[in-house]
Amino acid sequence: MLDRLIELNADYAAAIDDNRLEDWPDFFTEDGFYRVTSAQNHARGLEAGLIYADSRQMLRDRVLSLRKANVFESQGYRHLLGLPRIRGRDGDRARVETGFAVLRIVRGGATDIFASGRYLDEVVQQPDGPLGLEQRDVVCDSTR
Amino acid sequence: MLDRLIELNADYAAAIDDNRLEDWPDFFTEDGFYRVTSAQNHARGLEAGLIYADSRQMLRDRVLSLRKANVFESQGYRHLLGLPRIRGRDGDRARVETGFAVLRIVRGGATDIFASGRYLDEVVQQPDGPLGLEQRDVVCDSTR
Amino acid sequence: MLDRLIELNADYAAAIDDNRLEDWPDFFTEDGFYRVTSAQNHARGLEAGLIYADSRQMLRDRVLSLRKANVFESQGYRHLLGLPRIRGRDGDRARVETGFAVLRIVRGGATDIFASGRYLDEVVQQPDGPLGLEQRDVVCDSTR
Repeated sequence: MLDRLIELNADYAAAIDDNRLEDWPDFFTEDGFYRVTSAQNHARGLEAGLIYADSRQMLRDRVLSLRKANVFESQGYRHLLGLPRIRGRDGDRARVETGFAVLRIVRGGATDIFASGRYLDEVVQQPDGPLGLEQRDVVCDSTR
Repeated sequence: MLDRLIELNADYAAAIDDNRLEDWPDFFTEDGFYRVTSAQNHARGLEAGLIYADSRQMLRDRVLSLRKANVFESQGYRHLLGLPRIRGRDGDRARVETGFAVLRIVRGGATDIFASGRYLDEVVQQPDGPLGLEQRDVVCDSTR
Repeated sequence: MLDRLIELNADYAAAIDDNRLEDWPDFFTEDGFYRVTSAQNHARGLEAGLIYADSRQMLRDRVLSLRKANVFESQGYRHLLGLPRIRGRDGDRARVETGFAVLRIVRGGATDIFASGRYLDEVVQQPDGPLGLEQRDVVCDSTR
């Protein structure tokens, strides 16, 4: 399981860092859930997230919006992922926590730390394929 | 061994980053040794450390002091650990080196690099449990 | 393979961070190719690199020059490597991509992010030894 988790996370980070956003929804299952929230809100049990999607289709729509907004044109990102912690297993499923930091590279400028936090994941071994994310809660350390 | 080292380090980092300091001494053996020093002092063979403990009990006392001082209230940390390097093995024991960086998240402020360096560890497979730290020398790159 | 790639990368990073530059050429095969370039030039297919070597001997010469220039005296580095992604395998060979960030530690000063990017590697299992780098293209995110 650890090897496949490492593979999933390395592939996921590379897709975003290489600006292959169209590949991003495919890391999730059909009903995959994705949410970005802050550590503060997470600790208070608030369900609301800064970004939210509850299906692969919704993630695809989000990528289209990002492409229209050209957000990814003027700057780049570099994900640094920690080692995955398997917090629980149940057959083909696992709960996993992984720390991360994201560097932001501004064209011709300095590189700074854009965000840090941890992924709280529910992953499932798909019958005919790689591990899929049923849920990825991105809990950011800072509220910025 | 590599899988268990990854697990030990991921669990260790998460305990600190989640502010579960009370769990921290349990990563060490009963007579576990912990020291924070600078690369400069380490290279000179100086034994003194900025922080020092030579038993699990002493680490527990240290956590109590930190709690009283409220150091961990106003800011957060995020550990980014490198891949563990096994430098030597002898039965149930191993000498391991692992690079690290620690980000500091100030509430409502920017995130910066708090420290970087390497852990020089002596780990032992405990008879009825996980790997334990017999020694963790935290050698910081900077003297700050 | 993943375990040995983790070992190769951890050893490589430690050699540079410990200022054991003389060990660096030995991570390459005899005809090992090394190049540092920017993401912009890489995307445009430009062959030129900021730094370039096409044999272990050329890397050794480069280390001698660096030693003469004393570049590594006044500051230190800390590599943070991501998880290796195996992008293709063919017998004893593999194409591998690994994200990285390098922190720069200035004596008595602050630590900043010196560079980030990814290694695009061709590695080979050497008959009587560890994995060797036949090619390491260091593609830096920033042009700085």
